[in-house]
This record gives sequence, structure tokens and C-alpha cells, in this order.
Amino acid sequence: MQIDILTLFPNMFTGVLNESILKKAREKGTVRINVIDFRKYANNKHQSVDDYPYGGGAGMVLKPEPIYRAVDNLLDQNKSHPRIILLTPQGERYTQKKAEQLAQEDHLILICGHYEGFDERIRNLATDEISIGDFVLTGGELGAMVLVDSIVRLLPGVLGNNDSPINDSFSSGLLEHPHYTRPREFRGMTVPDVLLSGDHKKIAEWRKKESIKRTFERRPDLLNHYPFTEEEKRWFEEIKKEKKKK
Amino acid sequence: MQIDILTLFPNMFTGVLNESILKKAREKGTVRINVIDFRKYANNKHQSVDDYPYGGGAGMVLKPEPIYRAVDNLLDQNKSHPRIILLTPQGERYTQKKAEQLAQEDHLILICGHYEGFDERIRNLATDEISIGDFVLTGGELGAMVLVDSIVRLLPGVLGNNDSPINDSFSSGLLEHPHYTRPREFRGMTVPDVLLSGDHKKIAEWRKKESIKRTFERRPDLLNHYPFTEEEKRWFEEIKKEKKKK
Repeated sequence: MQIDILTLFPNMFTGVLNESILKKAREKGTVRINVIDFRKYANNKHQSVDDYPYGGGAGMVLKPEPIYRAVDNLLDQNKSHPRIILLTPQGERYTQKKAEQLAQEDHLILICGHYEGFDERIRNLATDEISIGDFVLTGGELGAMVLVDSIVRLLPGVLGNNDSPINDSFSSGLLEHPHYTRPREFRGMTVPDVLLSGDHKKIAEWRKKESIKRTFERRPDLLNHYPFTEEEKRWFEEIKKEKKKK
Repeated sequence: MQIDILTLFPNMFTGVLNESILKKAREKGTVRINVIDFRKYANNKHQSVDDYPYGGGAGMVLKPEPIYRAVDNLLDQNKSHPRIILLTPQGERYTQKKAEQLAQEDHLILICGHYEGFDERIRNLATDEISIGDFVLTGGELGAMVLVDSIVRLLPGVLGNNDSPINDSFSSGLLEHPHYTRPREFRGMTVPDVLLSGDHKKIAEWRKKESIKRTFERRPDLLNHYPFTEEEKRWFEEIKKEKKKK
């Protein structure tokens, strides 16, 4: 997979791209990530990429030309049909499902807005507009990093066999069950007995029940789409009854 | 404000903390950010911070001791009552409102999980559990960066007067109106006439209508809580009528 990131702050990416699984995936050649400063596509003496808004008002607005030119250049070089993704608080809300879809693509171009806003015509370039959530960031850079991290870890061979993405929160449709490791007792807090029992069937059942319980307590909305088995349905009814008693 | 970040990948933060407004806010002294590798609080020869899960299963689990010790150390040093925030997909969904609340605090400690999961007892340390969205990341580091960026830009004096956070998406309760800057015509796409009219009342009205329209098209859920004025209510009725005609 190739990912091109258009930004005015290329240095923001250095830490994130050079650590942990993104580093490994790049070294392996599973993904090629280019961070491109689109200021170099400004066609004026001062390399200015923004200008005052028509109609007045506070803040500067990103001009359309530099970004259009940077994208033109990438399309010329690659002869591919990339998804062109604009990071914006007005975009579609990013989810694991979208990450899974984008992980199927060969080429992604991510455009990071910055400053107060960007010229409306930049939207016409994009095949997708994505928001990572209802909060305001200085620019699209952190959103781009979130996309890259969540997508690259899904590419074949990136995670080891031992940490397959299948058990992730959201992939199964439920939140994860609690995890415990040594020590068995820590500051008065102990590991549940069932996990020490060696009874694999019981452990699997406890974990699934805890998953359902936790999802019910914290994210009941996720249960609307969860395909319960008959057994899980019974467990869920028990969990609801217990909850009412309290 | 002081922000301490506990992570196993301190280098991931270098780019983000040293660019743009986070850099400026740190240089000004508005915020002091410490990135702490909690591996140095592991109390074993091999500095191991994770171990096999009780009950079996794939993946390693972060042990409780190193993180508890790192937090103890911060509490001893600071004599403050920090919010201790665990970044986890199971947490409360992060919003601009939460950013505004956290921006009122003096001291935040952010704990980044990593690997397959963390020992359940680590949750007991936290005053808040936060998720930035329904997608799976390699660790809590990107979530911590999102919190830091969104909070620090709200601190007094961080943004210039010209880009006050008041007009942000979400702060007003509506998505932002479209922005345009020069050139007036670009690849056949033109700037709406009203923005060139010089009529400030008309421009303000156009912008508010576009804001309502865009929110209605993209995020109708936000309108449920929006305090419409009488005039805005009329505009909204017009927008809905126009929409139906199409």
C-alpha cells in the first residue's frame, strides 16, 4: 500500500511513523508512506498557502491551488486511482469498519487541513471526507496519523500471529473482557478465581459474559447490531436481571 | 497546566509536541508536558512491563506495578490532585465538551495502554477513561496526542486573537459554513456572489444559513440540541422545504 500525506507540518509525523508497528511495516515494505509539504506547490514568491476569506471574518483560509497541484503531481506519478481523503471535522465519522474498507485500497492520499479553514473548492478533490470525532484539533495531522495507524495494522503480516486483530474491540462487535496478569494479588486486588481454574470452557464463558456485561454498561448502542447466539441471549438476560437487583 | 504522559513509546511524541501551536504553548510556558517512559518503573532485571494473561489466550498484558509506581512518583513530586486519564477504546467517547472541562484543570496524567491489553487493576488508578472513537489503534499514544492538542489550544493566550476558538465547529453547536479565498475563479469553480457583495448583513445571513444547511445534511443529530433563534427557525424550515423539492 502507498499512503501520501499532504501537510504543512511534515515534522509532526516523524515520531509516529518511526516507532512501533508503523516503523516495522515500513521497513518490511508492506506500506510506503510519503509525507509531502504542500507549501512547495505554492506558486508565488512568498510560498503562501493561505489568504484572507472572501466576505471578511477572522482567520486565514487555505488556498486551493497548492493542494490541487500536489494531488495532480501524485496522480501523474502513480497512474493509480487513489482514494483522496480530506480530514475535516465536517466529515463522515471514522469507524473500524471504514478502516477495514480503506485497508483494501492500494493507494491513499490524505489531505490535512490547517488554520481556520480551507477553500470550499478543495472538497471537490476528495473522494472521502473523514472526521475522527467531535472535537477540534489544530489541523488534520493527528487525524491522518489515526487513519494510518488503524489501517496499516490491518494489512496482512503487520501484526504477529499472536496479536491478530480479530479479537480487537469493535471487530467482534463487543468491548473486550477484562485482562489480568501477574501478580495474583496486587495492593489488595486479586485475580478472579475462574482465570486460575485451568477450566478452558469456564474461562471462555466468563470472558464472553464479561464482554457482554461491559458492553451493556458502557456502550449499549453496540448491542443493537450484535448477533447474539441463543446461549449468549440467555447470558444477556441474566446480566440485565442482576443489574436490576442492584 | 502540567501534563504528564506515561507511555512505552516516548519518541512517538517528539514530532507532535515540537510543531505548531503545541510548540509555541510550551515555549511560552502555558503548558509543561513531560513524556515519561514507564518502562523505567519496571522492578525486574529485564525491565519487562508485560506478562502472559491469566486464563490463557493470545497477546501480552501490561502489568500493574510499573504504571502504579510511575503515578505514585508523580503524585509525590507534585502534591496536586491531577485527573488521571486512561486512554482505552472502552472509555467515554471524547468530545469538545470534555476538552473544555479538562482545559480547566491544573494537572493531567495521561496513561497510554499498548499491546493487547492492560491488567484490569490499572483501571482503578484512573479518574477518567477516554476513547477518541470506535476504531482500534496500536496504543493510547495517538489518543493522548489528540487530548493534548485539543486541550492546549483552549488555554488562554495560546491561539491568537484572530483565530479564537469560539467559531470552531462544535463550539457553536453547528458545523462551520463554507470558506472561500482567492482566486475568485479556480478551474471553473467560482466564489458565491454574496461573499463579494460587501453587504455584511447579507454575508452573515448566508453563512448562518449554510451552517444550518450543512449541519442538517451531515450531522442532523447536532441540531437536536441547537438553540435556534426565531429567525434561524424560519431559515431551517426553508432549508427543509428546498431539500424536499430536490
